[in-house]
Amino acid sequence: MENSDIIYGKNSITEALIAGTREINKIIISKNIHSDSKINKIKELAQERGVIFQFVAKEKFQPYAEFNHQGVIAFVSPIKYEDLDDFLSKSHENSSLVILDGIEDSHNLGAIIRTCVCAGVDGIIIPSRRNVQVNSVVEKTSAGAINHIPIIKVNSLVSAVQKLKDNNWWVIATDASAKDNYYDIKYNDMNFAIIMGAEHAGVSKTLIKASDFVVKIPMQNQFNSLNVSNALSAIIFETLRQKLTGKS
Amino acid sequence: MENSDIIYGKNSITEALIAGTREINKIIISKNIHSDSKINKIKELAQERGVIFQFVAKEKFQPYAEFNHQGVIAFVSPIKYEDLDDFLSKSHENSSLVILDGIEDSHNLGAIIRTCVCAGVDGIIIPSRRNVQVNSVVEKTSAGAINHIPIIKVNSLVSAVQKLKDNNWWVIATDASAKDNYYDIKYNDMNFAIIMGAEHAGVSKTLIKASDFVVKIPMQNQFNSLNVSNALSAIIFETLRQKLTGKS
Repeated sequence: MENSDIIYGKNSITEALIAGTREINKIIISKNIHSDSKINKIKELAQERGVIFQFVAKEKFQPYAEFNHQGVIAFVSPIKYEDLDDFLSKSHENSSLVILDGIEDSHNLGAIIRTCVCAGVDGIIIPSRRNVQVNSVVEKTSAGAINHIPIIKVNSLVSAVQKLKDNNWWVIATDASAKDNYYDIKYNDMNFAIIMGAEHAGVSKTLIKASDFVVKIPMQNQFNSLNVSNALSAIIFETLRQKLTGKS
Repeated sequence: MENSDIIYGKNSITEALIAGTREINKIIISKNIHSDSKINKIKELAQERGVIFQFVAKEKFQPYAEFNHQGVIAFVSPIKYEDLDDFLSKSHENSSLVILDGIEDSHNLGAIIRTCVCAGVDGIIIPSRRNVQVNSVVEKTSAGAINHIPIIKVNSLVSAVQKLKDNNWWVIATDASAKDNYYDIKYNDMNFAIIMGAEHAGVSKTLIKASDFVVKIPMQNQFNSLNVSNALSAIIFETLRQKLTGKS
């Protein structure tokens, strides 16, 4: 059993049922947990959606002991990654993308997905190698946000960036040694993609070279180590501020 | 042994040695780990600082198995929390504070500390109860940032807010149902404190009432659940943008 094939925890499962974007094969609920309002909500939604749920002995949860499952697990079909061409064919004006170059930590990916959904980002591109994939921990950390945004998996980020540029997207890489600050860019009236780098290595040189702009977050301290999801949050909400106020 | 009395992991210990703000009683290094450049750096800094380090059998690390210690642990005196009056007596013009109302998750507190240091926030206020305290996990997640910012512990957040207002600080609470957006406030030319609420409950009603402004982050999706450290990052870097550009 791949851990990408389960969703665990009350909130994650409720979100997945509400969103309806994942095929849920079965939900198991431990006989030993108290049936609270969240569990009742799950049962109710499962019935509405025609999803089987079973009350099982707690021993059935033994294989999933490493997960903070709260006595409820859903078995799901693997997440459907979107194709970049399909995404581009459907994208509207002033769309935005976040490109992740080598994010290793599941919790960071989960937090990034939440931030992107809250800020109205239209999709997230991850490479098929050298980046954490969407697993159960990511699903849980994303608090269900994963159901509200397409995740686009590509074999080569360099090719993806080239394709975006060919389709009149602007590509912006983040790098600590950049001259421009992230708020110096005018994000309105264009399709843009922001590249965030790995926790330690940052965005790869090849991708920086391929980008239209390179920006940094101005650090106010010699201590220069912002968490990647927090760095993205600063940048992505600045793009939203510009969009909503019309001011750069 | 309180877990607030150890710092674990190569980077956290290196940062603590460089910052020199914590009294380090002893560093133990496992005989079983390879002596890489990071370990050599720790030995070098420890010698410079006159800190004892010992190579010990891996069994000595047994009590700390729950921590990802990488074979190196420093025993330190407890963190010195700062007093609000002392902080205020030293504070300069255009200072900023972040007030945390009931943050429960150690990783969130660690990420918040990093963000605050990177954005040049002058201090963090936490209540002595109903909020996670600075423990080893917080130290580790903060990646050493804890050594670069005063943490102010108060018995009552309401009294602290009142004291700030009496000292001509502006207090800004965050709340999902606020009318104003966080970027509607002009943060320049004032001392301000931003209150961030607990992961689920948000900022308490009493504190919202006591604040000068209440702001929200405009959510672009029904899915309304930004991680607290990511929410703070959006707001705090907006205050920095205004400061550095002079534009609101």
